[in-house]
Amino acid sequence: MPATLPLAARTSAIAGALAGVLGMLDWRDHLRYEPGICDLVLGDPQEMPLPGFVSSLTRHTQPLNKDWFAYKRSESEARETVATSLREWRGLPFEPTDIALTPGAFGALAVAFRALLDPGDEVVYSLPPWFLYEPMLLSADAVPVKVRVRPEDNDLDLDAIRSAIGPRTRAVIVNTPNNPTGRIYPPATLRALAALLTDASARWGRPIWLISDEPYSRLVFSDAEFHSPSEFYPYTVISYSYGKVLLTPGERVGWLAISPAIPGREQLRQAIEVCQIAAGWLFPSAVLQYAIGDLERLSIDMADLERKRDWVVAELTAAGYQLRSPEGTFYLWVRSPESDDTAFSRRLAERQVLVLPGTICQAPGYFRVSLTADNEMIDRALPVFRAAVAEVTGTVG
Amino acid sequence: MPATLPLAARTSAIAGALAGVLGMLDWRDHLRYEPGICDLVLGDPQEMPLPGFVSSLTRHTQPLNKDWFAYKRSESEARETVATSLREWRGLPFEPTDIALTPGAFGALAVAFRALLDPGDEVVYSLPPWFLYEPMLLSADAVPVKVRVRPEDNDLDLDAIRSAIGPRTRAVIVNTPNNPTGRIYPPATLRALAALLTDASARWGRPIWLISDEPYSRLVFSDAEFHSPSEFYPYTVISYSYGKVLLTPGERVGWLAISPAIPGREQLRQAIEVCQIAAGWLFPSAVLQYAIGDLERLSIDMADLERKRDWVVAELTAAGYQLRSPEGTFYLWVRSPESDDTAFSRRLAERQVLVLPGTICQAPGYFRVSLTADNEMIDRALPVFRAAVAEVTGTVG
Repeated sequence: MPATLPLAARTSAIAGALAGVLGMLDWRDHLRYEPGICDLVLGDPQEMPLPGFVSSLTRHTQPLNKDWFAYKRSESEARETVATSLREWRGLPFEPTDIALTPGAFGALAVAFRALLDPGDEVVYSLPPWFLYEPMLLSADAVPVKVRVRPEDNDLDLDAIRSAIGPRTRAVIVNTPNNPTGRIYPPATLRALAALLTDASARWGRPIWLISDEPYSRLVFSDAEFHSPSEFYPYTVISYSYGKVLLTPGERVGWLAISPAIPGREQLRQAIEVCQIAAGWLFPSAVLQYAIGDLERLSIDMADLERKRDWVVAELTAAGYQLRSPEGTFYLWVRSPESDDTAFSRRLAERQVLVLPGTICQAPGYFRVSLTADNEMIDRALPVFRAAVAEVTGTVG
Repeated sequence: MPATLPLAARTSAIAGALAGVLGMLDWRDHLRYEPGICDLVLGDPQEMPLPGFVSSLTRHTQPLNKDWFAYKRSESEARETVATSLREWRGLPFEPTDIALTPGAFGALAVAFRALLDPGDEVVYSLPPWFLYEPMLLSADAVPVKVRVRPEDNDLDLDAIRSAIGPRTRAVIVNTPNNPTGRIYPPATLRALAALLTDASARWGRPIWLISDEPYSRLVFSDAEFHSPSEFYPYTVISYSYGKVLLTPGERVGWLAISPAIPGREQLRQAIEVCQIAAGWLFPSAVLQYAIGDLERLSIDMADLERKRDWVVAELTAAGYQLRSPEGTFYLWVRSPESDDTAFSRRLAERQVLVLPGTICQAPGYFRVSLTADNEMIDRALPVFRAAVAEVTGTVG
């Protein structure tokens, strides 16, 4: 018998792309329960869950009939609820069967990748990205093609996207509001992107898919406005999770929606259900599907989140950090005072403040701060941020 | 723009393999709520859920800390619970990190396929099979290689398995207790299978994986005894779901366990976690992970299930049907009196009795009856079974 296990070679490539993320998760798990730690790494809750979330799950756990916990595909009522909400929210005539219920946006993306991509297909997306697009695309045998956003304003670099599209391009992923930059792409950008994709589709002889990853679309600050790429380009699917707006990522529920503007979309509906089943029955648990009507109406306190944003942005800016105030999400994307963001993150961690190094998002020289922290954590973290930047720039001893 | 959507070609093959199953699910969904219907199609509950299941989920929905609904991978306590249980149950020294919590056995299989199989790898399994191995294997780009069980006793046909194994064989799936036949493979068979796989592994220069799909391993009748293939062959992974023993398949929770007998299994543990993340965060929701300690101790009423088995087997046999009394699962696997099992299933459906045609399990000439039915349904179904066989064989008018 050989010394190494006969594992799938494909998995090795995925493992390589995930190594940094797994290392980060283990590092955080090791430190986060220490007393006094300020855990600003992930979009995880740092306060008790929303009471409305708990009461909804509790209520919907009580069985009303024998089928309560039977096999569920996408439940009709949940689809109807989401379609009704999206009709108003996105201004498109979504039908219930355009909605596939999934275990979070993660599940929605996994299903979309499998329904839309063949092995070797190229998928274009912008850096800094959500740090799991790459391993998920590799898992779907697709080829990630990365461009950078414009450094001056974190908006999409349309010229770069145009240049990256070729005959093997099957899809473009757009994530707005963006994790990690907090940028919401403006209508002008999305309109120009749509024109670009329409041209490229005509040039290469088949429509290029737009995968619009919108888990943060309800986390929009009062000075910004969200527009979905689906308003501008027909060949769009939308992924969404309730885990962000409710801060409950451990309960896996979200959806994949098909734009009603897609001609002949019945084929796509069927392909999505086929992929949900064959990829491991990627439907949410029954209780979470029953709760969707409640979950659609719940949200973390956005006014409080905005207060935290303004507070921390002002403090970090005053301390000498370079960052743009985010328009959405609960993240700040900050230029690292040290070019080695991993070293700077370690420097913060030594003083019990944990952040996400930009290197994990393929954007060295930056770090990400999660504003899901409570006030007390922020109070403890701010002097550490001030001291660390001073240490590096030599402003103070 | 083309008339057909640019969907993934790979999905078409999967859709083809799933077409029969999807048609069956839609047919059943269309009929099952009619008054008087006897729905014996799937392993779905026909009675109210176990109170202990409901109270456990309700209790574990109440948050005890801020991390209650935070991102979860495989929770330490859940892993510890399962490992402790398996040490006694399988007689092998499982460690907590040998257990990956998954959304049911479905999720466990999806993860195992991705961790163990490369595109083009062949996987051998026996017919009649669980009807979703084929689409799931195609979804993992693997090649299904099918052999038949021995018709006289539904035991594994070891000669057929030996002949089916070649240089591209990466894994063999064994499902015991078997869906749909109800057969539990005896130790002698499993020992001989292990010898066969050890020989073949040596011959082809790398270990062949044994994927032991055991979701029914707690549904064992008093006149039978369950043995896991993992007791006999080292390179084994086990998939399990709580959805069968609790009759709650709509709440997605189960596990994939790595045999402690696998040399250097740390690599496999890592590969499994990588695949869980990259395939769409295939971890169960938080509440279901917290509940595992309770779920391990709960079960549907096995004495009552056994009474139903004895009752229905006796009645069907007396009516002229050919079937073996199952040793485990909640299914009866019955020879169809008409060679066209789909036609015979339609004949039963016209009289409001729904069964699973064997054609769905690639075993024409049989049908499957689920014993999850309640007494009243069985009472109504038995005269229909008697009338239908009489009609076909011409015994009675």
